[in-house]
Amino acid sequence: MSDFTKVALDAMGGDNAPGEIIKGAVEAVKKRNDIKVLLTGQEELLKKVLSEYTYPEDQIEIVNASEVIETAEPPVMAIRKKKDSSIVVAMNLVKKGEADAFVSAGSSGAVLVGGQVLVGRIPGVERPPLAPLLPTMRGVSLLIDCGANVDARPSHLVQFAKMGSIYMEHIIGKKNPTVGIVNIGAEEEKGNALVKETFPLLKACKDINFIGSVEAREIPYGAADVIVCEAFVGNVILKLYEGVGGALTKKIKAGMMTSLRSKIGALLVKPALKATLKDFDSSEHGGAPLLGLNGLVVKTHGSSTSKEVCNSIVQCVTFKEQRINEKIREVIQFAQEED
Amino acid sequence: MSDFTKVALDAMGGDNAPGEIIKGAVEAVKKRNDIKVLLTGQEELLKKVLSEYTYPEDQIEIVNASEVIETAEPPVMAIRKKKDSSIVVAMNLVKKGEADAFVSAGSSGAVLVGGQVLVGRIPGVERPPLAPLLPTMRGVSLLIDCGANVDARPSHLVQFAKMGSIYMEHIIGKKNPTVGIVNIGAEEEKGNALVKETFPLLKACKDINFIGSVEAREIPYGAADVIVCEAFVGNVILKLYEGVGGALTKKIKAGMMTSLRSKIGALLVKPALKATLKDFDSSEHGGAPLLGLNGLVVKTHGSSTSKEVCNSIVQCVTFKEQRINEKIREVIQFAQEED
Repeated sequence: MSDFTKVALDAMGGDNAPGEIIKGAVEAVKKRNDIKVLLTGQEELLKKVLSEYTYPEDQIEIVNASEVIETAEPPVMAIRKKKDSSIVVAMNLVKKGEADAFVSAGSSGAVLVGGQVLVGRIPGVERPPLAPLLPTMRGVSLLIDCGANVDARPSHLVQFAKMGSIYMEHIIGKKNPTVGIVNIGAEEEKGNALVKETFPLLKACKDINFIGSVEAREIPYGAADVIVCEAFVGNVILKLYEGVGGALTKKIKAGMMTSLRSKIGALLVKPALKATLKDFDSSEHGGAPLLGLNGLVVKTHGSSTSKEVCNSIVQCVTFKEQRINEKIREVIQFAQEED
Repeated sequence: MSDFTKVALDAMGGDNAPGEIIKGAVEAVKKRNDIKVLLTGQEELLKKVLSEYTYPEDQIEIVNASEVIETAEPPVMAIRKKKDSSIVVAMNLVKKGEADAFVSAGSSGAVLVGGQVLVGRIPGVERPPLAPLLPTMRGVSLLIDCGANVDARPSHLVQFAKMGSIYMEHIIGKKNPTVGIVNIGAEEEKGNALVKETFPLLKACKDINFIGSVEAREIPYGAADVIVCEAFVGNVILKLYEGVGGALTKKIKAGMMTSLRSKIGALLVKPALKATLKDFDSSEHGGAPLLGLNGLVVKTHGSSTSKEVCNSIVQCVTFKEQRINEKIREVIQFAQEED
């Protein structure tokens, strides 16, 4: 059946591999009959884990890969040396067109390097950004870039804004998404050298809906649909988001256990609290795509459970159906012809 | 009485000026008899507001300043032109030695520029960092720098680490405080150009307790006592901290109002929740000092209420008593002699 979206899945990557990864694959193919998962990893091990499940067997295939890239390994070296690793084997499936997408909860560095070196960039894309969805008070915002592209240039940020707008419009369904640049004040003259140079370029872009600077304080309130920033800043935002949310939740839960009165109250508010915190849980939104590549590469949390793996696999279908890469190619090429 | 700590207070700065500012001054002098507050601002207005309170009258004095610097004004120009503004008049009191410290909830830009131009730097200090305290699961951490020094150099960050360590040890009472640099991974080879250059310099510092990289996710858990970063990143951290905390709290409160069951529960957990959130409220910790100046300059939130103003005034006493500036001078000069 050629209408399958074929997803190569790194069965060896992440804190909970291969158990939760394989469970996520099974959940995905049970949910959707238009997905085929190509599990890469140590065949015997994967077979054994898979045998515990019943699922439509034509929708999961094992592709043997004997090696594993560890999180602590220097990524460039790992991609070059471990040719039979689950990551390299899966990426080569995408490169050869045997898979539409690649999903991994493994080494971020290896996924980012492999994406560029093996899968390759769409012509004209200067740097592929990693773009996770952040939960906000108004839904979600796309944070672009929080990948490996530290010390980016203004032209990179302009491409991030364009690619992010395409993603938000066609994957998330947000018409004419707003674009903001992370800054330390609302005024145009504020910012560091990068932001000051990028601001007028974004303002001059006709194909995005640029609304100016966004202060970090406003991000959780949904200040813009696409939040553009350089990768170091984006990484700080992503991780602090998780950190403050996690710490505060822990503190609130502990606080509720301090007296009998509050314990009883805690029992009563628990279901409501759970629903609230679910809204602010980034694993609900699947993994972060690495945009601008010849194929889709999705990085999910290292701590991913089956739910996040399943969501990440399913999101690949929309990506393919919406022809996101064709749209990126058109916008990037159009900009180059204009220059 | 020469044992007074004399604090010049910008009575016109901030969203709640002059009401909450003056109220904060009154609270401070009622709490401590070793503080004298010099209120700068429009004399008639301040007199009128002050007349509503009873307080030890020899501890508050009004110094007339006819102008006000607005938050939106370009700071360099404002400091230069508005010589009779509450900020410039107060800073000149510090410069002339008539006040030990200056506290303002007004324009951050004007306070940062005025601090450098009017109060002046301690010899050898390259850039004065703004260093607020962040509430964490383990107490507080000093975030240094989140001021106006964007695009900092490695030597600046090294001085931030030293000044921050002195502050944490002698104001907060943390013996041998740990120092971490904000980074996007734990390994030494990770980071942007600035972090990679700064890391070995910090590692080589004998007078600080450097523990390496700190990821943003770990900051709320109290990963290090002194969190060193460049100002743009620091500003993002500070504001996102407030933003995520505020948004999540709002969401949790709204979530608790969704059913009768959770409403009853909310009533029961309310006191415990309030105490918990107070721990994570940065206004409990007063304002942020601008370190490395000939005198103390403290910037409090624009939205400060009397409580934060009062805490900021009181913290000036410890700063003076602990001779923080003498200690900074020694450490900076010692480093220069070593070079």
